[in-house]
Amino acid sequence: MARFPFSAIVGQDEMKLALLIAAVDPAIGGVMVFGDRGTGKSTAARALAALLPPIMVMEGCRFGCAPDESSACPGQCSASKPVKRSVPFVDLPLGATEDRVLGSLDLERALRTGEKVFEPGLLARAHRGFLYIDEINLLEDHLVDLLLDVAASGENVVEREGLSVRHRARFVLIGSGNPEEGELRPQLLDRFGLSVEVRTPRAIDDRVEIMRRCAAHDADSIGFGARWAEEDGSILQQIARGQRKLARMDVPDAVLLDAAQLCSAVGVDGLRGELTLMRASRAYAALKAAKTVRREHLLHVAPLALRHRLRRDVLDESGSTARIERAIAEQFA
Amino acid sequence: MARFPFSAIVGQDEMKLALLIAAVDPAIGGVMVFGDRGTGKSTAARALAALLPPIMVMEGCRFGCAPDESSACPGQCSASKPVKRSVPFVDLPLGATEDRVLGSLDLERALRTGEKVFEPGLLARAHRGFLYIDEINLLEDHLVDLLLDVAASGENVVEREGLSVRHRARFVLIGSGNPEEGELRPQLLDRFGLSVEVRTPRAIDDRVEIMRRCAAHDADSIGFGARWAEEDGSILQQIARGQRKLARMDVPDAVLLDAAQLCSAVGVDGLRGELTLMRASRAYAALKAAKTVRREHLLHVAPLALRHRLRRDVLDESGSTARIERAIAEQFA
Amino acid sequence: MARFPFSAIVGQDEMKLALLIAAVDPAIGGVMVFGDRGTGKSTAARALAALLPPIMVMEGCRFGCAPDESSACPGQCSASKPVKRSVPFVDLPLGATEDRVLGSLDLERALRTGEKVFEPGLLARAHRGFLYIDEINLLEDHLVDLLLDVAASGENVVEREGLSVRHRARFVLIGSGNPEEGELRPQLLDRFGLSVEVRTPRAIDDRVEIMRRCAAHDADSIGFGARWAEEDGSILQQIARGQRKLARMDVPDAVLLDAAQLCSAVGVDGLRGELTLMRASRAYAALKAAKTVRREHLLHVAPLALRHRLRRDVLDESGSTARIERAIAEQFA
Amino acid sequence: MARFPFSAIVGQDEMKLALLIAAVDPAIGGVMVFGDRGTGKSTAARALAALLPPIMVMEGCRFGCAPDESSACPGQCSASKPVKRSVPFVDLPLGATEDRVLGSLDLERALRTGEKVFEPGLLARAHRGFLYIDEINLLEDHLVDLLLDVAASGENVVEREGLSVRHRARFVLIGSGNPEEGELRPQLLDRFGLSVEVRTPRAIDDRVEIMRRCAAHDADSIGFGARWAEEDGSILQQIARGQRKLARMDVPDAVLLDAAQLCSAVGVDGLRGELTLMRASRAYAALKAAKTVRREHLLHVAPLALRHRLRRDVLDESGSTARIERAIAEQFA
Amino acid sequence: MARFPFSAIVGQDEMKLALLIAAVDPAIGGVMVFGDRGTGKSTAARALAALLPPIMVMEGCRFGCAPDESSACPGQCSASKPVKRSVPFVDLPLGATEDRVLGSLDLERALRTGEKVFEPGLLARAHRGFLYIDEINLLEDHLVDLLLDVAASGENVVEREGLSVRHRARFVLIGSGNPEEGELRPQLLDRFGLSVEVRTPRAIDDRVEIMRRCAAHDADSIGFGARWAEEDGSILQQIARGQRKLARMDVPDAVLLDAAQLCSAVGVDGLRGELTLMRASRAYAALKAAKTVRREHLLHVAPLALRHRLRRDVLDESGSTARIERAIAEQFA
Amino acid sequence: MARFPFSAIVGQDEMKLALLIAAVDPAIGGVMVFGDRGTGKSTAARALAALLPPIMVMEGCRFGCAPDESSACPGQCSASKPVKRSVPFVDLPLGATEDRVLGSLDLERALRTGEKVFEPGLLARAHRGFLYIDEINLLEDHLVDLLLDVAASGENVVEREGLSVRHRARFVLIGSGNPEEGELRPQLLDRFGLSVEVRTPRAIDDRVEIMRRCAAHDADSIGFGARWAEEDGSILQQIARGQRKLARMDVPDAVLLDAAQLCSAVGVDGLRGELTLMRASRAYAALKAAKTVRREHLLHVAPLALRHRLRRDVLDESGSTARIERAIAEQFA
Repeated sequence: MARFPFSAIVGQDEMKLALLIAAVDPAIGGVMVFGDRGTGKSTAARALAALLPPIMVMEGCRFGCAPDESSACPGQCSASKPVKRSVPFVDLPLGATEDRVLGSLDLERALRTGEKVFEPGLLARAHRGFLYIDEINLLEDHLVDLLLDVAASGENVVEREGLSVRHRARFVLIGSGNPEEGELRPQLLDRFGLSVEVRTPRAIDDRVEIMRRCAAHDADSIGFGARWAEEDGSILQQIARGQRKLARMDVPDAVLLDAAQLCSAVGVDGLRGELTLMRASRAYAALKAAKTVRREHLLHVAPLALRHRLRRDVLDESGSTARIERAIAEQFA
Repeated sequence: MARFPFSAIVGQDEMKLALLIAAVDPAIGGVMVFGDRGTGKSTAARALAALLPPIMVMEGCRFGCAPDESSACPGQCSASKPVKRSVPFVDLPLGATEDRVLGSLDLERALRTGEKVFEPGLLARAHRGFLYIDEINLLEDHLVDLLLDVAASGENVVEREGLSVRHRARFVLIGSGNPEEGELRPQLLDRFGLSVEVRTPRAIDDRVEIMRRCAAHDADSIGFGARWAEEDGSILQQIARGQRKLARMDVPDAVLLDAAQLCSAVGVDGLRGELTLMRASRAYAALKAAKTVRREHLLHVAPLALRHRLRRDVLDESGSTARIERAIAEQFA
Repeated sequence: MARFPFSAIVGQDEMKLALLIAAVDPAIGGVMVFGDRGTGKSTAARALAALLPPIMVMEGCRFGCAPDESSACPGQCSASKPVKRSVPFVDLPLGATEDRVLGSLDLERALRTGEKVFEPGLLARAHRGFLYIDEINLLEDHLVDLLLDVAASGENVVEREGLSVRHRARFVLIGSGNPEEGELRPQLLDRFGLSVEVRTPRAIDDRVEIMRRCAAHDADSIGFGARWAEEDGSILQQIARGQRKLARMDVPDAVLLDAAQLCSAVGVDGLRGELTLMRASRAYAALKAAKTVRREHLLHVAPLALRHRLRRDVLDESGSTARIERAIAEQFA
Repeated sequence: MARFPFSAIVGQDEMKLALLIAAVDPAIGGVMVFGDRGTGKSTAARALAALLPPIMVMEGCRFGCAPDESSACPGQCSASKPVKRSVPFVDLPLGATEDRVLGSLDLERALRTGEKVFEPGLLARAHRGFLYIDEINLLEDHLVDLLLDVAASGENVVEREGLSVRHRARFVLIGSGNPEEGELRPQLLDRFGLSVEVRTPRAIDDRVEIMRRCAAHDADSIGFGARWAEEDGSILQQIARGQRKLARMDVPDAVLLDAAQLCSAVGVDGLRGELTLMRASRAYAALKAAKTVRREHLLHVAPLALRHRLRRDVLDESGSTARIERAIAEQFA
Repeated sequence: MARFPFSAIVGQDEMKLALLIAAVDPAIGGVMVFGDRGTGKSTAARALAALLPPIMVMEGCRFGCAPDESSACPGQCSASKPVKRSVPFVDLPLGATEDRVLGSLDLERALRTGEKVFEPGLLARAHRGFLYIDEINLLEDHLVDLLLDVAASGENVVEREGLSVRHRARFVLIGSGNPEEGELRPQLLDRFGLSVEVRTPRAIDDRVEIMRRCAAHDADSIGFGARWAEEDGSILQQIARGQRKLARMDVPDAVLLDAAQLCSAVGVDGLRGELTLMRASRAYAALKAAKTVRREHLLHVAPLALRHRLRRDVLDESGSTARIERAIAEQFA
Repeated sequence: MARFPFSAIVGQDEMKLALLIAAVDPAIGGVMVFGDRGTGKSTAARALAALLPPIMVMEGCRFGCAPDESSACPGQCSASKPVKRSVPFVDLPLGATEDRVLGSLDLERALRTGEKVFEPGLLARAHRGFLYIDEINLLEDHLVDLLLDVAASGENVVEREGLSVRHRARFVLIGSGNPEEGELRPQLLDRFGLSVEVRTPRAIDDRVEIMRRCAAHDADSIGFGARWAEEDGSILQQIARGQRKLARMDVPDAVLLDAAQLCSAVGVDGLRGELTLMRASRAYAALKAAKTVRREHLLHVAPLALRHRLRRDVLDESGSTARIERAIAEQFA
């Protein structure tokens, strides 16, 4: 059965925006999706991965090397030739072990031939694609920490069992979780670049439309995909254009000042808030094909970049998003 | 001793209906049975499996391949010939390990011959049949999650111990549990397609009849089965006809609107509620040999599809079933 | 030292009755003995096993096959000849592991010769005899569950470590426990066929008599046994006659109606209560050499069959036995 | 340094009496010593073991077989010749594992030669002597249970790792513990034959005398032992005479009646109380070289036999010993 | 991407001072950094390491021996020749095991060749550099203790698995943690030489400047580094001069008296407070190129040396730093 | 760097006294040091070990045999020749395992050559010296218990992994701990011979002097040691003289009476209090070169011997030391 098309997803604009920003600038640091079960969180992420054009990888390379990366590949793939492969989408299984995530010694081969060979893990497989973690709040903290470290540095350094391997692992980390089921430590949350909140759609029309599209997709997934191909294509062009523009996009000092004042006003600890806000504004402006980053870009992405970084304020019981919107209204109105 | 016949089960109509719907459309996502101990939950599921006609499998195939599946079989069974086998019914033992469920490396063979061969697990054995989990609330969450993932995708992907195997695993998942003994997390419950509630029959006549039938079955199980063969046969025909009709059964927009309004009225988080309701209505209409899905089909299966998905409402202490029935009465009366 | 004779046990009539019923119909599902420490619970069970005549087993068979069972023996004992052996009485050691109970791979042989041979466990050893579990409330739930499964099905199916073995394991399961030390889950209790309550004898005469008999047995266990041989012999005849009559014993509808009404009146969840009551009445009638099952048989065994299955009733603090007796008095007086 | 002589122990009469009774009839079931730290509990037990005359064992036998036991020795020691050995005194180390206590497979030999040989454990070493467990309340319950089982049956049956060994293990079990540090479960306590309470001596004269004797023993342990040799010798004769008389000692019915009435009056659950009381009275009478057991013997040992078996009585806060003494006074005054 | 230059860090003067003091006198005992997430704690430490000039190590030596250390190297590197290497900066991974930190037996080599060879751990790799532990409060206490022991003695003594290895391990230990996430035990805190508190900068100008520098560094890290090379060079000279002066720097008695009085006034348990204060004053004076240690040096570093060693004072709720400053004001004003 | 000299330690007279008494009579049973962190507890113990003259050991003996012990050495060192070695000082590492402490099978050798050789542990290394345990309250109880057993008996008996080894292990056990960090169980505390309390010195002069001496020692540890050599020498003579006199030192009955009365007055459970008090008085008198033990000796060491053995008295909140001093004042004034 073919994937559900990205553009056929009804509503959920904030989640789609965050995914597009992360596709334009993967260095933004991952997306954390909060929200109700059964709202299509994983469907949207899979759809975005399926929409992207295939990538070139060295044939048989277990580290997913791009042709220009093969010289530093621990698997020595430089002798093979490039082939096409779809963008990887790795779903971290619940109960995955550190071994399986990082990679480990190929024990069977070590016992049989005496050679110490590294067996790449899920991080290697996610290279140049997406790593999706459902119910991330159920994962052990140290594993989340490790995944965030790799996502931030784009490199997996393994020092285990006498192995010392270093390979590229650049991917967009997407975590999903329901805050009612246990929270992430603030230290970990802070390290996600963006966060979004998704809710079950309220409008009856939307809900009927969703059922209608699901039924159509179930009945004939190929035909359904064909009907949405054009819309998906234009999103793909938007991403490609954004990636090209990003390198040359400058952030004016006035916008930096806005960022600092907004973070100060809403009470964000540390500096990751304004640094992410700066980068997200830049990527969003690139996506929108703007000439320069403007205050409106900043304000549009502020909830995505700051919502999960607010200090708890005992006297102000309104939610994080409301507090950001109020601060925006007070400062920039 | 021969199995107790499905049609000889006294009462328990809702449980029998849910099993029949799942037999018509296994993609409905499993059945969760809540209720008292000793009410024949496992007897009914076993009886349904025993009633279904034998299936054709490739001889000696450890993955239970149907003749048209053998080309993709990881066990390379395409060279063998098809034979008959009864529909598998797998009872998940308490304390089953992930290894045993998913399958694992055949360690003995690896040590002896150096070959890495996959030893299929219970998921492979349940392929094209039933997987029954008694007291599912005692199972570890991550195992339940894993079983629901496989049940939903119809495929088991194993990435362990240097193995990378993918085989079909389509089955009807049936869980049973007593809510007094600890609940499943709402996240997991939501992923079961249907749920039913069974209770000890109150009517003295029914209870005497049950004892009478058990005594007769104990005394001569073969003869007892013969007496119920005709009734079992007509149920079998009903299922077969439903399976044939399902592919062509359409759900009118008016019924989708009913579904969305009902889910909205009773307060179901996420979209799995209405999607399952749509599918269950379709399967029920097919079972009833209807021309199209009608509101009455929808309303008949609504408690099965929605009961386990309601948000808790602190102000409304009536049970889930009562709330659904009240919403139906208010909306469609 | 010779065993203490069954007939020399002073008092404890209910426990002795339950053991005799289970000896007549082992399919009754085991006996749970509640009560004070040091009241001879294990002594009675051992005495009953010692009283039964030797059984015929295939020589050297590790599965205890009767001559007519050897064709299906996983140990392939059909070539050996039948020999006499006393009825097995297995005392489940505290801290016994699942391996030890179920049987497991004979690791030493696997390592030495490369053959995968099954090492039978305690279930195989208990076949055709008794499995006694002292302080069953201290055993892990999943092990109790497993033992009850095997006791109910009469078959042990092992799927572990690449082994797939199936052997007969029919035995009378006897559990003992002190409710003050932690309870079994109702789900587990419900699966025991009968339950009895034993108490320290109050009458001084009985207590002196017990000391006198113990002293005599300590001083000369052989001579003591000889003095009680005749009484033990007549109990043995009673059991043998009961076993023969059981197959032909019918339960009239009037008695089934009594059973259903009694279970309904005292509040038993599920159907195991009345099914066990029906079977226990039948076995008791056979033991008493009755022509048919009568209401008096039913009422005599009702506390054994129902006591451990009553719902807790917050408004009625009288014990389970008292509630059953009161219901009997109200209904059948 | 030579052991401290048994007869040089100042005071602690009750503890010494219990040890002597257990030496006369080891089947009494062990002695539990409650009380303050540093009161010479272990010193007394060691002294008694050192006082007993050497025993004859088969040379090199790892099971400590007496010459008349060698025919059934699993170590096949019958070919060797008897030699003298001092009475074993085994101090159970805290943290001892089940393996170490029961014995286990000699893994090294199994790996080297392929033979499965049993490595006897501490139970084999304690055979015919003493097994001392300091702070028994810190031991895991299942290990205590296991030790009490073996102490009661006089036999160690090992079924582990494919071994099936059975060897004699008759010993006097002595446990010590401070009730302030956690209690034994009543079930376990009940299985100890006797119990004693020791306290720090209050009398200044006694305390000075203890220091004086310790200083003398430290300065010249050989000479000190010589000074107490005669007193130790007469205790040894008393034990030997008691052992000879025990087999012929009868307990009159009147004394049995006293035992039953006393146990009934103080509220002992189960029958172990009066059975132990009967046996302790018999051993004490034998120790005292009496012709028959008399009420005075019974009353003298009653606190030892019953103290740890009383039901807790919420309305009577006086200690166990006081309650027994009061009951004696009321009944036999 | 090149490292962020040390001198380009905006603000955070206290953290930078502590790092410079530790660079001058590594025997000071490590630096503990408390404070908000995302404030550049790890950036500053890495920048300092990157700023220091390369060191000479024996080529291929796994213990990082300096040329004058190779005679005592357990890896016997004395035959190889010295080469340049950058100052090591080791980031302790969360979940690092004792094995990995201390070093361990090279198991693979032991199994293959039978040789027992030591595989150096992270402590060996950190020799002559920095060991950074993020979120040290999440590390197990015994590992923190072990790291502090090695940091204090400058030597790693390994006694494991039959190995007995001793190698130099002199490094600056830097721990960071957020007190809101769990505290270190006072015993461990006391063993850190210095502590600093970092906070998110409040001044909007600073925050804009930080974003501007990060953006510039992201855009062109090489060019950015070139712009700060001169400032980094002068810091390097300051450190080098301080290291040379340290050996000859004397602490006058008057300053020792100040130290004792200050520690006494603020309530520091033990003597590590004043000893560290003496050493930190000496290093700071050396860094400042002073002729002798003066009171002003002492007072400037007092918060760094004492803050984490104050007894909790229930009546004085002002923070540690405030209490030190008040005591200084009272005593030395 | 040379060790800090024992005589250069400022203050801490009680700790130094306890160490000297233990050096004179190692059978006193170890010293427990309570108190603040950073007060030189470990420095004093190390200094005492360094001050003692070298001992003679058999060359290459892994059990540290003295020449007159080699006949019973399990390592069979009698053929080698005696050499000098400094007095061992073993620092028990946190997280040390039972294996490492007791010694264990040399696994590597067993696997390679098939020989079972004992690898001595830390107890063997501490023989004839000191075993120091920092933060003993963090050690597992059973390990503390084991160490106290060996310290008391002077012998290490290992029964593990098929080994049965017995070797001498006489050492002074020194534990340190902070009562605020968790207490030892009274049972364990009672088994330490002496205890001392150390506090941070209050006098400013002392604190300045300590810093001055540390600075001098840091600057030139060799020269500093030379300046204190004479004072260290006279302490060494005092110890040697005490050891010689100890064997002939008698304790008059009047002093024993004082001991018993004092222990009775302050409320010490058990007899270890007065026995230790007697022995400590004797050692102290020997150290002081007295002719006989006098009341003043007894009173001087009473706090050391009794402080950790007092029963808690709810009505008397003054500390243990104060209660002992008050009792002395009342009784002997």
